Amino acid sequence: MSALATAVADRLGVSQLERCQPPALSDLNLAPPRLTPPPSLASICSTQVYDRAAHTYGKSFSDVVRAVHGQVEHPPDVVAFPTKESEVVAVLDWCSVAGAAAVPYGGGSSVVDGVSCNVGDGWAGAVSIDLGRLNRVLDVDQVSRAARIQAGAMGPGIEDQLRPHGYTLRHFPQSFEFSSLGGWLATRSGGHYATNYTHIDDFVESLRAVTPAGVLESRRLPGSGAGPSPDRLMLGSEGILGIITEAWMRVQDRPTHRSSASVHFATMADGVAAVRAIGQAALFPSNCRLLDPDEAAGSAGVGDGSALLVLGFESADHPMDAWMDRAVELARDHGGTLPEGVRSSSAAGAWRSAFLRAPYGRDALVQLGCIAETFETACTWDRFDALHGEVMTTMEQALKEVCGGGTVTCRFTHVYPDGPAPYFTLLAPSRHRSQLAQWAELKAAASEVVLAHGGTITHHHAVGRDHRRWYELQRPPLFAEVLRAAKARLDPGGMLNPGVLISG
Amino acid sequence: MSALATAVADRLGVSQLERCQPPALSDLNLAPPRLTPPPSLASICSTQVYDRAAHTYGKSFSDVVRAVHGQVEHPPDVVAFPTKESEVVAVLDWCSVAGAAAVPYGGGSSVVDGVSCNVGDGWAGAVSIDLGRLNRVLDVDQVSRAARIQAGAMGPGIEDQLRPHGYTLRHFPQSFEFSSLGGWLATRSGGHYATNYTHIDDFVESLRAVTPAGVLESRRLPGSGAGPSPDRLMLGSEGILGIITEAWMRVQDRPTHRSSASVHFATMADGVAAVRAIGQAALFPSNCRLLDPDEAAGSAGVGDGSALLVLGFESADHPMDAWMDRAVELARDHGGTLPEGVRSSSAAGAWRSAFLRAPYGRDALVQLGCIAETFETACTWDRFDALHGEVMTTMEQALKEVCGGGTVTCRFTHVYPDGPAPYFTLLAPSRHRSQLAQWAELKAAASEVVLAHGGTITHHHAVGRDHRRWYELQRPPLFAEVLRAAKARLDPGGMLNPGVLISG
Repeated sequence: MSALATAVADRLGVSQLERCQPPALSDLNLAPPRLTPPPSLASICSTQVYDRAAHTYGKSFSDVVRAVHGQVEHPPDVVAFPTKESEVVAVLDWCSVAGAAAVPYGGGSSVVDGVSCNVGDGWAGAVSIDLGRLNRVLDVDQVSRAARIQAGAMGPGIEDQLRPHGYTLRHFPQSFEFSSLGGWLATRSGGHYATNYTHIDDFVESLRAVTPAGVLESRRLPGSGAGPSPDRLMLGSEGILGIITEAWMRVQDRPTHRSSASVHFATMADGVAAVRAIGQAALFPSNCRLLDPDEAAGSAGVGDGSALLVLGFESADHPMDAWMDRAVELARDHGGTLPEGVRSSSAAGAWRSAFLRAPYGRDALVQLGCIAETFETACTWDRFDALHGEVMTTMEQALKEVCGGGTVTCRFTHVYPDGPAPYFTLLAPSRHRSQLAQWAELKAAASEVVLAHGGTITHHHAVGRDHRRWYELQRPPLFAEVLRAAKARLDPGGMLNPGVLISG
Repeated sequence: MSALATAVADRLGVSQLERCQPPALSDLNLAPPRLTPPPSLASICSTQVYDRAAHTYGKSFSDVVRAVHGQVEHPPDVVAFPTKESEVVAVLDWCSVAGAAAVPYGGGSSVVDGVSCNVGDGWAGAVSIDLGRLNRVLDVDQVSRAARIQAGAMGPGIEDQLRPHGYTLRHFPQSFEFSSLGGWLATRSGGHYATNYTHIDDFVESLRAVTPAGVLESRRLPGSGAGPSPDRLMLGSEGILGIITEAWMRVQDRPTHRSSASVHFATMADGVAAVRAIGQAALFPSNCRLLDPDEAAGSAGVGDGSALLVLGFESADHPMDAWMDRAVELARDHGGTLPEGVRSSSAAGAWRSAFLRAPYGRDALVQLGCIAETFETACTWDRFDALHGEVMTTMEQALKEVCGGGTVTCRFTHVYPDGPAPYFTLLAPSRHRSQLAQWAELKAAASEVVLAHGGTITHHHAVGRDHRRWYELQRPPLFAEVLRAAKARLDPGGMLNPGVLISG
């Protein structure tokens, strides 16, 4: 921690960073719960301070700041831990009778205030419904290569259960360790992989959800043209239409052939042109992350001021040499160089471990009183240059005004034929009492500039409450009406995740 | 025609086939129109017999039978030909005031009674809204490789307008010549290509639709995780929620590298195993059509009783040898043989031309008093053997009982990692006065067996009115409620395409 404090102080050019110690459990002072679970549910419900405090926040910057400072705002009155779907139904029934808001909770990794019990007025209390005990892979279909998985299963648990069958879900968001299948589905999670099948949306054969109006289950199919997709309505519904309890998911054989390369570009613009060419060539690299020079220096140890493209191919079926050869050729056509050549081992090891460590580092930076925030979007290629330029200028200016300085860097997380998904990282000095206000100011500046330049308010972080203001500008007004109508049918009392995605 | 009559009579083992001559326009006797367009719309509206008759039916078997026999049931009272979006709005406004049903009409190629004015009681009349004059490519974005296209543009017109830019939409349903972008979007059209990006769904960046409640337009994005996708609600909505007027579509560079092969298998089962392996290897062939022995003999001239796999790869960027080599290796591992080797020209020419000619042949067969029908589905691999076996047995039996004989054959149109989309073709002798009743009996038998064995009622033919009965069994009941709620918001008077997708 003190090494980090020194390194960050150096990077930000500030004299010192003071660490704020997170509170002990015994320091927390929660209001007494306003709800008492009925005897039939008592064994799966908790009103313990630990459980309530642990389910108060997700993992957004403001969540972590408040948690570190022992501010426990809007804790759930009760945390329910259903062990089977019928108990999810029973908990919702009880919430309905009790006039309580019901907040689905998967891994708790929301960075958009999507899992808190900040549900507004008019409720007798709030129940956090933790799906974590619905954590099993229930069926594996070796012929179709699919698995029926409970929604509360977390990333590592899913992989552990699929591994003996030779399978992987191959969905690795940065939150992998602390996020669940149900959360991925409810938020349209983006996986680690850069192209083609990477969004969780595309792995769904069917899903099952408990709504206050009953259970909704779609037919398990590899593809269908029968009306609008019921699954696509639930995907991205962020817990406001129902609680996803399980899904049949497409799984994959575990990759055995890998090829990766690190390509250097003199400028970010050269790298962008190369990535566009590779993304439009239908080669479908598993990894195609472009890091701007600052990020390449900070995350992957690139010392020569280059932008870095981490390029990877993998397959469970065949060597990927022809694929990589062509991608490298395209990269070279756009000025790329490969100081290390193509390697079959992971040339991207440094970057990968930085990627996995980043969320832990963020929490430490919060304790040091810094602003450490990321925001992400996607836009078509024709708008990227303007969006990128304006975001960098606007945020550098905002950091100067709000924090007296700081850094903003950019990388691509996903690449589509028609555009990239740029991901921006802010790091700035702050003061412990100003972090939240400064963060809110920066968040607003970032969201506005992204939206003004044709980006989406979120490519894979979800909407929650934090993005709702801008989502409302982006979402077609008539589609908002449809969402409200859908909610009115499935959740007539409006008790599911109030304030998320649509206003109350 | 007489050569066809002889060939089909031989194949079906019947003595002769009598040709029914389609009526002349002057033979048609339509009830007078019940509606008169207001003066402001008179110039874009027609009540001519030709226009009304031409917009009475789609292209289903029963449509063609009735047309051939001069039965013009439920003709539109008026056909509107809007030339710009504001005229679509004006026509809907007029329909609303006049109490008329409004039926969107693209290319008129619906095979599920999706474009007729069979709208039920309670309407002062029905207006067929033909989008055919909204047929332009409005914008081409050379950076993102995308184009803004009006919904009434037909397949060939789209390609003609994209070709000068070096682009193709590369969406070639069998109806390509006579179907429109708007129709493809409204019915979730499946393209000609077998794997990966082939459904029209996946080419949509954004779309724009006129609803009775106003215009709905989504933001143009390469990807997004901001709430449920508004586009995915309109995709497959079959004209009941709004009239799609234009969309930003992902286009592609025109392929320059092609490789194709014809692989023979001793049995259909061997071919199925090979296709499953190829489909799960992430090679993404553009063509991967498996024809059962009867279909291989009939459509591709295969004379040795083999099942035939038509395998193709294409790219605008790079030679596809490595891809094809691995796919052929997988096919050989499953007993496939390549009598002609791999060729860079189209080895599948015979099949391709049969595929393109088939719809014309179907219309001729109708005139000869035959039953000539196709139905299609998709199911996961684990269910395919039972579904295929039961469909073949059930339909052979049904053909015997209903028509005294006939043939049923199967091919795959699309292949997913987790299952195929099998497509069945029926050919049977009938009598001119019995065709419709016999067709209805066969259609019901086919739909029931497909649904009972885990298939979807339609993979790419849509629901319309013809499939609605079975779609209602497949669709989650709560999703039906959501669809109704969406319709109530977007089309409060329920005037858009009554009876399609949901009951009135």
